[in-house]
Amino acid sequence: MNLTITDVWLTPILVADPPLLNTQGVHQPYTPRLIVEVLTADGITGVGETYGDTKYLELARPFAEKLKGRQVDDLNGLFTLADEVAVDDDRVSGQVDVGGLRGVQTADKLRLSVVSAFEVACLDALGKTLGLPVHALLGGKVRDAVEYSAYLFYKWAAHPEGVACEQDDWGAALDPAGVVAQARLFKERYGFTSFKLKGGVFPPEEEIAAVRALAEAFPGHPLRLDPNGAWSVETSLKVAGELADVLEYLEDPALGTPAMAEVSAGTDVPLATNMCVTTFAEIKEAFTRDAVQVVLSDHHYWGGLRNTQQLAAICRTFGVGVSMHSNTHLGISLAAMTHVASTVPGLHHACDSHYPWQSEDVLTQRLTFDDGKVTVSDLPGLGVELDREKLAVLHQRWLDDDGALRERDDAAAMRIADPEWVTPAVPRW
Amino acid sequence: MNLTITDVWLTPILVADPPLLNTQGVHQPYTPRLIVEVLTADGITGVGETYGDTKYLELARPFAEKLKGRQVDDLNGLFTLADEVAVDDDRVSGQVDVGGLRGVQTADKLRLSVVSAFEVACLDALGKTLGLPVHALLGGKVRDAVEYSAYLFYKWAAHPEGVACEQDDWGAALDPAGVVAQARLFKERYGFTSFKLKGGVFPPEEEIAAVRALAEAFPGHPLRLDPNGAWSVETSLKVAGELADVLEYLEDPALGTPAMAEVSAGTDVPLATNMCVTTFAEIKEAFTRDAVQVVLSDHHYWGGLRNTQQLAAICRTFGVGVSMHSNTHLGISLAAMTHVASTVPGLHHACDSHYPWQSEDVLTQRLTFDDGKVTVSDLPGLGVELDREKLAVLHQRWLDDDGALRERDDAAAMRIADPEWVTPAVPRW
Repeated sequence: MNLTITDVWLTPILVADPPLLNTQGVHQPYTPRLIVEVLTADGITGVGETYGDTKYLELARPFAEKLKGRQVDDLNGLFTLADEVAVDDDRVSGQVDVGGLRGVQTADKLRLSVVSAFEVACLDALGKTLGLPVHALLGGKVRDAVEYSAYLFYKWAAHPEGVACEQDDWGAALDPAGVVAQARLFKERYGFTSFKLKGGVFPPEEEIAAVRALAEAFPGHPLRLDPNGAWSVETSLKVAGELADVLEYLEDPALGTPAMAEVSAGTDVPLATNMCVTTFAEIKEAFTRDAVQVVLSDHHYWGGLRNTQQLAAICRTFGVGVSMHSNTHLGISLAAMTHVASTVPGLHHACDSHYPWQSEDVLTQRLTFDDGKVTVSDLPGLGVELDREKLAVLHQRWLDDDGALRERDDAAAMRIADPEWVTPAVPRW
Repeated sequence: MNLTITDVWLTPILVADPPLLNTQGVHQPYTPRLIVEVLTADGITGVGETYGDTKYLELARPFAEKLKGRQVDDLNGLFTLADEVAVDDDRVSGQVDVGGLRGVQTADKLRLSVVSAFEVACLDALGKTLGLPVHALLGGKVRDAVEYSAYLFYKWAAHPEGVACEQDDWGAALDPAGVVAQARLFKERYGFTSFKLKGGVFPPEEEIAAVRALAEAFPGHPLRLDPNGAWSVETSLKVAGELADVLEYLEDPALGTPAMAEVSAGTDVPLATNMCVTTFAEIKEAFTRDAVQVVLSDHHYWGGLRNTQQLAAICRTFGVGVSMHSNTHLGISLAAMTHVASTVPGLHHACDSHYPWQSEDVLTQRLTFDDGKVTVSDLPGLGVELDREKLAVLHQRWLDDDGALRERDDAAAMRIADPEWVTPAVPRW
């Protein structure tokens, strides 16, 4: 058994994305992702996936070089290594990311978002080498399947005319009836029983009406609304008050810990976040001020699966719930999310996943949802296999792009339909 | 590879302990410990060690039965399993443990103290099976050696006359000169450069004088004083004031989070604890009140090595330091402590260990301190080997005992020398 990493491959790709609306704009027809592979001296390959915008790629390249010659089981060492990779300060603003709705941007967070793909790839390779599933490398699953929620979006039927892209078969959803129809389709296709609506797109009254329509169509089912911080404290409290009887939680109604703490103090509706707490540095203030009741972990932000377990332990210790966030991702990340989620005790909420929106993948076999759940794989590693032909096609698309799509920018995508569009000031309502 | 646990062996032992003084009394001539072994279907054995008093043993027995047939890599499952084992409520008082100075006693903590030995044994067996050291199963070491501190005690030259026991060669230490002489011996024998004095034995002025003498004898070396909560807030602040220029930290000067928070607010000397924060349930209050600046983890209390890593992550997130506590223990636990300590980033303080006080062990080869450090083993598992003959001798001593020594009771041991001795009321000074 030789655990030495002999090579690391980085493959940036562009993956088809439907015209999903959020408060910043609309998803581009293609979203950049980065596929990471590590190869060990035994000829074992491990795969990982993360955000693919240039700033991630620029950091991943020197990191990949440093990784060669190290041991694939040296997972704690990945963080030491990450600290050694310089981040171009122009790439991190200390501000909320305009395009990606990804919360605070710091050099550390950028590093961790890159490390996460390498950590998952190392875990995959290590698991394959040892004959153990990734969940076993994380201490073992405590459940055999992980529940996901339907991730509802307001959406157009198609990307703007003239934009070359794949077409989806979901249709439009621009009002309560459209949202309910989409939810029915999600339930029919995947069996989901929890529903999250991405809000912040229309005035709050319209989104309240959509959630009300969902509650009527799916009585007793857990419902969530996530306007990505688009609301003032006052608006947040108004929405919380009007939907208190049907919401499982309200996600990031307002932006930043002080505003979230104010909302939290004024309502009994639990507040979830993937924006005001996306780094370990933000936990202390948010938890001591009781600003959030559920943290939605994105293992990419937090630096991988083992850090996600640590986050879960911190949440448990402070009586804060934990579940999982999702941004546009493929099957590698869904497999990774499922492995780590299977090991977290007290996962009280169905996890988010964009996966159903992604018609393309880089795997030989897509992961499936049965009754809204993904079965935890007991195969060695992640239990997924890379399809090199599919990967090559999506990479070629990235190569062919003139650069316009290599940075995800939902506002720029919106301007194709509405040239006057500017990123809305926050709070929008 | 078959990871199924086919058998579990529990061996209670009595291990020689010198007449070390603390605020409750004196160490018994023999201390109970429990040695745990798990056997897998592949014929691999893993070893663990924990407290050996009857209440631990009573819990370990049904736990061991439940463990058979499970997988040795199902580490998260150990906690689920532990929840299924009933704890006799009479065995846990919700109060501070009188005999062992082990902090709050709850059913959960008792369970975790038992689980820890099984977790370490499982990690040892798993590591041996996979050909990986335990630190690799914890994500990999970030340092090659772990630093320990000299654990100085006021002590008698020998146990009371008439008590059958082993003799030690450390001599008495009952005043500043004796403490300094003991420290010199520690430095000479093991190379330690940090010194911790177990206090709470003599009036504070005498202990202040002892620390002053240490500071003079070892200028610039990190010094600590630990009276096990024997002092009032007022006394604590007085001692902190007088020793502020030489103390690395003050350990548990007063008892309980409210008192510690009061002390903390009144001094710049960092406060360490192994008494007011010994469970995850105690963290929130202590950290939000800034009652402690360093948590000394005892992996037995916290439920093993992976929980210790989680504790360290919580401390890191809240800007609280972390190091390691020790109670009387043998080489298995020292090896376990060293493996986990090697994986914890930002371990800013030398760890505690009683190991130099234990002339007996159950290993074929004792672990050694070089320049105050234990080298992290890269052998599969913990890297230690059980000596069955030595184990049998110490187990026979336990079998031969009439029950008087099977429960560690420092006050009872003191009453042999001083029949009038009663456990001092707290605060003692």
